[in-house]
Amino acid sequence: MKLDGVPHRSIARTADGAGVRILDQRRLPWEVVWVELRSAEACATAISEMWTRGAPLLAMTGAYGLAMALAEDGADAALERAHAVLLATRPTAINLRWALDRVREHVLPLPPETRGAAAFARADALCDEDVALNRAIGAHGLALFRDLHAKNPGRPLNILTHCNAGWLATVDYGTALAPIYLAHDEGLPVHVWVDETRPRNQGALTAFELASHGVPHQLIADNAGGLLMQRGEVDLVIVGTDRVTANGDVCNKIGTYLKALAAHDNGVPFYVALPYTTIDRTIESGDQVPIEERAADEVTWLTGPDAAGTLRHVRVTASPAHNPAFDIAPARLVTGYITERGVLERP
Amino acid sequence: MKLDGVPHRSIARTADGAGVRILDQRRLPWEVVWVELRSAEACATAISEMWTRGAPLLAMTGAYGLAMALAEDGADAALERAHAVLLATRPTAINLRWALDRVREHVLPLPPETRGAAAFARADALCDEDVALNRAIGAHGLALFRDLHAKNPGRPLNILTHCNAGWLATVDYGTALAPIYLAHDEGLPVHVWVDETRPRNQGALTAFELASHGVPHQLIADNAGGLLMQRGEVDLVIVGTDRVTANGDVCNKIGTYLKALAAHDNGVPFYVALPYTTIDRTIESGDQVPIEERAADEVTWLTGPDAAGTLRHVRVTASPAHNPAFDIAPARLVTGYITERGVLERP
Repeated sequence: MKLDGVPHRSIARTADGAGVRILDQRRLPWEVVWVELRSAEACATAISEMWTRGAPLLAMTGAYGLAMALAEDGADAALERAHAVLLATRPTAINLRWALDRVREHVLPLPPETRGAAAFARADALCDEDVALNRAIGAHGLALFRDLHAKNPGRPLNILTHCNAGWLATVDYGTALAPIYLAHDEGLPVHVWVDETRPRNQGALTAFELASHGVPHQLIADNAGGLLMQRGEVDLVIVGTDRVTANGDVCNKIGTYLKALAAHDNGVPFYVALPYTTIDRTIESGDQVPIEERAADEVTWLTGPDAAGTLRHVRVTASPAHNPAFDIAPARLVTGYITERGVLERP
Repeated sequence: MKLDGVPHRSIARTADGAGVRILDQRRLPWEVVWVELRSAEACATAISEMWTRGAPLLAMTGAYGLAMALAEDGADAALERAHAVLLATRPTAINLRWALDRVREHVLPLPPETRGAAAFARADALCDEDVALNRAIGAHGLALFRDLHAKNPGRPLNILTHCNAGWLATVDYGTALAPIYLAHDEGLPVHVWVDETRPRNQGALTAFELASHGVPHQLIADNAGGLLMQRGEVDLVIVGTDRVTANGDVCNKIGTYLKALAAHDNGVPFYVALPYTTIDRTIESGDQVPIEERAADEVTWLTGPDAAGTLRHVRVTASPAHNPAFDIAPARLVTGYITERGVLERP
């Protein structure tokens, strides 16, 4: 993805190679602040305090953190200590554990004094793999976009997306946004309806990404997508996912189900973009997925800049609130699953 | 509806009978400020600057404004001038025109010096009619609520509502909220899921009403209702409406359609509460209803108090936005229409 016309990954090594730089996502979309992480502790803080977010990006931050620890002390004890510290930042993040394990198994057979450089190289490779994977998802999605645009060539392809499954959650491209970036780059006219995605307003992050890359878009209230589909103003919906169950049910950010229903009711294709590994065959269907209940103050408070640019934290309601974080779009509402292996009708 | 345990109408005559007091709804839910209106001009300002809102309440404010003008000068010219000034505050508000016409036709045959008092009496009667109408809607809805609660008597009846079709939009009770107030008052245990209703956050007004009256409730993001229905945590949905077309399609606040879809998909009854006159038989179906497009800054900015209680106006996104105000819940998704004449399966 481009920022001010220059391609950037969301995580990359510093010029001296000894650290990484990431965006402090807590300050987005209001301020673009790159921070350098130069120790395992700094990486652990960045993960646990949500400077960085998105399963793949978290995982890469962890992998580089392990490399930084090994560059200081390559002994087995240091390796295990750093692995444990980094894993504890998000014990339920499957990708984080996976990436930490990949780096550990890569360096364990090596002499301690070479482990730091080897771990950095392995983390670099994991990043390159993530980019290649998302690019492949994007390419498969782009083929679909071309077909859909050909049905209505006189206007831009109108795409609706929910939450942020973009560059900011991965090393580059994102999942749901990957075909959008590729389409825009090859000159296919696209226009993106960006769901606000209350209560955490990740739509503002998606809008920030699209604006940075120059993709035409408009933010809409989460309530608006149904009407837009009723009026023929949406050509397809594309979202990411946290988990797809064996039967094809899609667990994703709260509100995804409502858009899947509206798409189905209006004959609008509803696509889910995901790495193939996001399919969890150990769970049969969505009704077995536990739904995280998050803090009510995500609903009742909101942060944004006032007219003078000062960030303010304001109350949205004085009432108690309830805040489930995910819902389930049943497989029957899903047109296709866009993976790096191709577009699947069923997982 | 009660405020601090005391029944209040949303509009009522001042102690001396020469004016009315209303709430300044621009300051709700953060501040409860009653204002007195003592001239037709003050009533016109209150309507055009949205101190007051909701079709019935606007209409009553206009009717009293006409009475105030006639109390000062009962001549035909003064009558026509005040009628025109008040109507111009909201030229498309059908209820406002209707109420102004009712007062005018009532006083026209009378001697000018008696018209002021007669107009006040007519406006009082219109208010009483609105209260009786909403109470009748509430009674018909309450009978449904009792039946639904009997299916699951061990827990409160879980009701989901969208926007504000309550006391604050009418003279008392509201439409969608009327059966909720009656149920609570007779001891039927109810719990209300209140949709935030972005972008204008009218859910905060509904929550304010319910809190004032002591009805258990929780605010939820507009995205959350689908999951709650999937998990069996909603026993019925009830909403108001701006217009029902001849075939039963329901035009209401943006996002209503998405809740109607989710209710239908989960076998949850979806009710619309409305005065019978809201049925517009001149329009065949919802696809012929023009949808108002409102200012984008309703999506991109939000006002609320900071921790110190100072109201702040903050940006929600830096991106362009699109802001349609209504959508259409098709008749096929509606379980019933709760009117003062009873519950209709079709309008």
